[in-house]
Amino acid sequence: MRDRHNMPGHRLVIVGGGFAGLACAESLKDSGAKITLIDRRNHHLFQPLLYQAATSTLPLSDIAWPLRQVFRTRRDVTTLLGEVAGVDAVARCVRLTDGATIAYDTLVLATGAQHAYFGNDEWAAHAHGLKTLEDATRIRAHILTAFEAAERAEDPAERQRLMTFVVVGGGPTGVEMAAAIAELARRVMQTEFRNVDTRDARVISLEAGPRILGAFPESLGRYAKRALERQGVEVRLGSAVTDCGPGHVTARGRMIRAKTAIWAAGVQASDAARWIGAASDRVGRVQLAADLTVPGCSEIFVIGDTATVTSVSGAPVPGTAPAAKQMGRHAALVIASRLQGGSAPAPFRYRHQGNFATIGRRAAIVDLGWIHLSGPLASWTWGICHIWFLIGTRSRIVVALNWLWSHLFGHKCARCWFPRGTEPGGGADKNLDCFKKSDRGSFDIRLG
Amino acid sequence: MRDRHNMPGHRLVIVGGGFAGLACAESLKDSGAKITLIDRRNHHLFQPLLYQAATSTLPLSDIAWPLRQVFRTRRDVTTLLGEVAGVDAVARCVRLTDGATIAYDTLVLATGAQHAYFGNDEWAAHAHGLKTLEDATRIRAHILTAFEAAERAEDPAERQRLMTFVVVGGGPTGVEMAAAIAELARRVMQTEFRNVDTRDARVISLEAGPRILGAFPESLGRYAKRALERQGVEVRLGSAVTDCGPGHVTARGRMIRAKTAIWAAGVQASDAARWIGAASDRVGRVQLAADLTVPGCSEIFVIGDTATVTSVSGAPVPGTAPAAKQMGRHAALVIASRLQGGSAPAPFRYRHQGNFATIGRRAAIVDLGWIHLSGPLASWTWGICHIWFLIGTRSRIVVALNWLWSHLFGHKCARCWFPRGTEPGGGADKNLDCFKKSDRGSFDIRLG
Repeated sequence: MRDRHNMPGHRLVIVGGGFAGLACAESLKDSGAKITLIDRRNHHLFQPLLYQAATSTLPLSDIAWPLRQVFRTRRDVTTLLGEVAGVDAVARCVRLTDGATIAYDTLVLATGAQHAYFGNDEWAAHAHGLKTLEDATRIRAHILTAFEAAERAEDPAERQRLMTFVVVGGGPTGVEMAAAIAELARRVMQTEFRNVDTRDARVISLEAGPRILGAFPESLGRYAKRALERQGVEVRLGSAVTDCGPGHVTARGRMIRAKTAIWAAGVQASDAARWIGAASDRVGRVQLAADLTVPGCSEIFVIGDTATVTSVSGAPVPGTAPAAKQMGRHAALVIASRLQGGSAPAPFRYRHQGNFATIGRRAAIVDLGWIHLSGPLASWTWGICHIWFLIGTRSRIVVALNWLWSHLFGHKCARCWFPRGTEPGGGADKNLDCFKKSDRGSFDIRLG
Repeated sequence: MRDRHNMPGHRLVIVGGGFAGLACAESLKDSGAKITLIDRRNHHLFQPLLYQAATSTLPLSDIAWPLRQVFRTRRDVTTLLGEVAGVDAVARCVRLTDGATIAYDTLVLATGAQHAYFGNDEWAAHAHGLKTLEDATRIRAHILTAFEAAERAEDPAERQRLMTFVVVGGGPTGVEMAAAIAELARRVMQTEFRNVDTRDARVISLEAGPRILGAFPESLGRYAKRALERQGVEVRLGSAVTDCGPGHVTARGRMIRAKTAIWAAGVQASDAARWIGAASDRVGRVQLAADLTVPGCSEIFVIGDTATVTSVSGAPVPGTAPAAKQMGRHAALVIASRLQGGSAPAPFRYRHQGNFATIGRRAAIVDLGWIHLSGPLASWTWGICHIWFLIGTRSRIVVALNWLWSHLFGHKCARCWFPRGTEPGGGADKNLDCFKKSDRGSFDIRLG
């Protein structure tokens, strides 16, 4: 280990504590850099399992870890809660929304992506995206409240509208969400309601392209479609959404009356490109040099979902957690070699480690390139890999236990929600606004 | 088991799924009554451990269970999500806030209590009460955000204000909260910050009376005070609060500058007395006959924290979970004997089973009447009893595991929070409003 006290402290600022930012900071242990990690949330989120929090299988606390706790023994890392408003690349400082500025010698932007509505931002109010813990909480409350309202609805058409769930997008997140909602309705809550049969719930998966899970080999995609359908999900291919409104989604000229729509169709990179005035692609990702720096700006690295780079292997780098981690580690390698005065490492090479998707409890697909798996074996592989990548032994034990319980007894452990929108300290609790008769004479679920 | 189909369905409506309502419904299994359980939340909450959710030790999902799931196998129980607006005792129906009415033959009101500010409702905005899951989420976010803001504050006085926590009330909840905040600052987060030493946090416990934990024998109260002080909590007795404002609390003429104040000092019964026009005591609890019915209204029972009754043993019935359960079971007994045409049971007799309080990790007090315990043995007794009373094997395992981890490693598993007040579907995530420079030149934490 190098003696940190003899080094002029190189100020490295990392913005974003997702997979990319975390991997970068972790790989720079003992590098001598004085690292400041800025995030607008206090936690790292394990996004691959976020759909399970949104559908009541896992509590939020099992898929998120405080960044401070992750770096508690790293005296070289300072964690700051703050939101970046911009970057002054000339003065070399990051400006936060509260006016504070943080100077850097090297800057790493790992600010990720969010869901996007193809230019129809007004759809956001009607089709919930899933990127954050609050998104998951909101979707969970929305789904469960829809069933509660259906239990009390008297009009059969209204009841059906309340129990119809549209998932837009047939990628892994969309497929996993659709299967999880179907499971909730058919295998978890089916004995709990007295006026409705939750197995009558319709879950509709809309995919604009000719097949779901386009990133997987065609045979696995066909298997996944059959598995989805077997679990009661209606899969509609070639169905690009043309309108989203309150209580309905229109695709291919047909309007579906559904209280709940979930958006898993598009992403938009963060504002990083705008902050640094860099060239970006059509979804806003910064176009990078092969060492993951911004062309003409060698002290700024951009990694993860907010970056686009061509790997020397020629393969496109996908917007996945493994790719983000690889970029984080590569940026750390370049930074460490600069700090040590070594020669520049070889350009970034993305190594594809495999694609996973799960479809409900017993079906999954795994594409490792050299082998394709589907069925229970894939399901186990998926589960073991995901537990492996969680942070900490406690989380691993608790997630495994919750999955076991869900598998054996069909119980979901995280099905409590509370009406949102309460005022801090408002002791009166007059907040059950989820059932308001709307002007149209039907129940209108409000999430407060 | 009696043949339900041959009975005219006696319509029993229970309002409230807390300890009292749950015990009543559970005890009426196979009674032949057609039970409707109404609650404005979808879950039963284990309130004795709510302070642990508020201070990051336990996830919300381990201390709350969906009412529907609890009664999934009870075909005689229909669970309804709804908020009661009033009762028509003449027409014998309950009116919900959305306009629906639900007819009853027998009504059980188990609507509990909420925190109260002794007529100073404006204090609610500054001193958070703890009764619901959303209260716990809010307090958790408030405490953690205060430390985050302190890490970034430059003015030492401001930093101290941010790291000062006032807990109003020296009853079990107040004592448990104060000890848990001190533990968080001194044993959990002490290595995680770089600009502040969280061990400098001040936790002040204010009690209006001459001693804390007045319901316990004096020797146990003295032990608890010493244990609290050993853990770094300042205990101020004879300190009734005379003012609460933004960032300060005044008691005994002294103003304490504190960003966070938690209210654990007073309760106010629900509106049940007003709904049925019954006589109530000064905190709004319905005054009952010895069979737990409302005098002059024998088909309405009131149980739990929203009722006051003199036990035939002469002992006052406290506002605790065991007392609520006993009332619930007694009401069920009276109802069942009426349905069966039997003779009326003996009047309600409260049996005191013991008082428990915990003070941080290794100190607790237990008063079983015939024996007083303090120290580690009391701590173990407290822990085992609380795990015993949780619902379901999974919860018991997970809570035990989380406590073990917290004990061994000082990690708290539920330390993630998210800024509230985001709009549904607002993908932009522009919601880190926790650091706004206030007009007074200091940071003002907003919970959104």
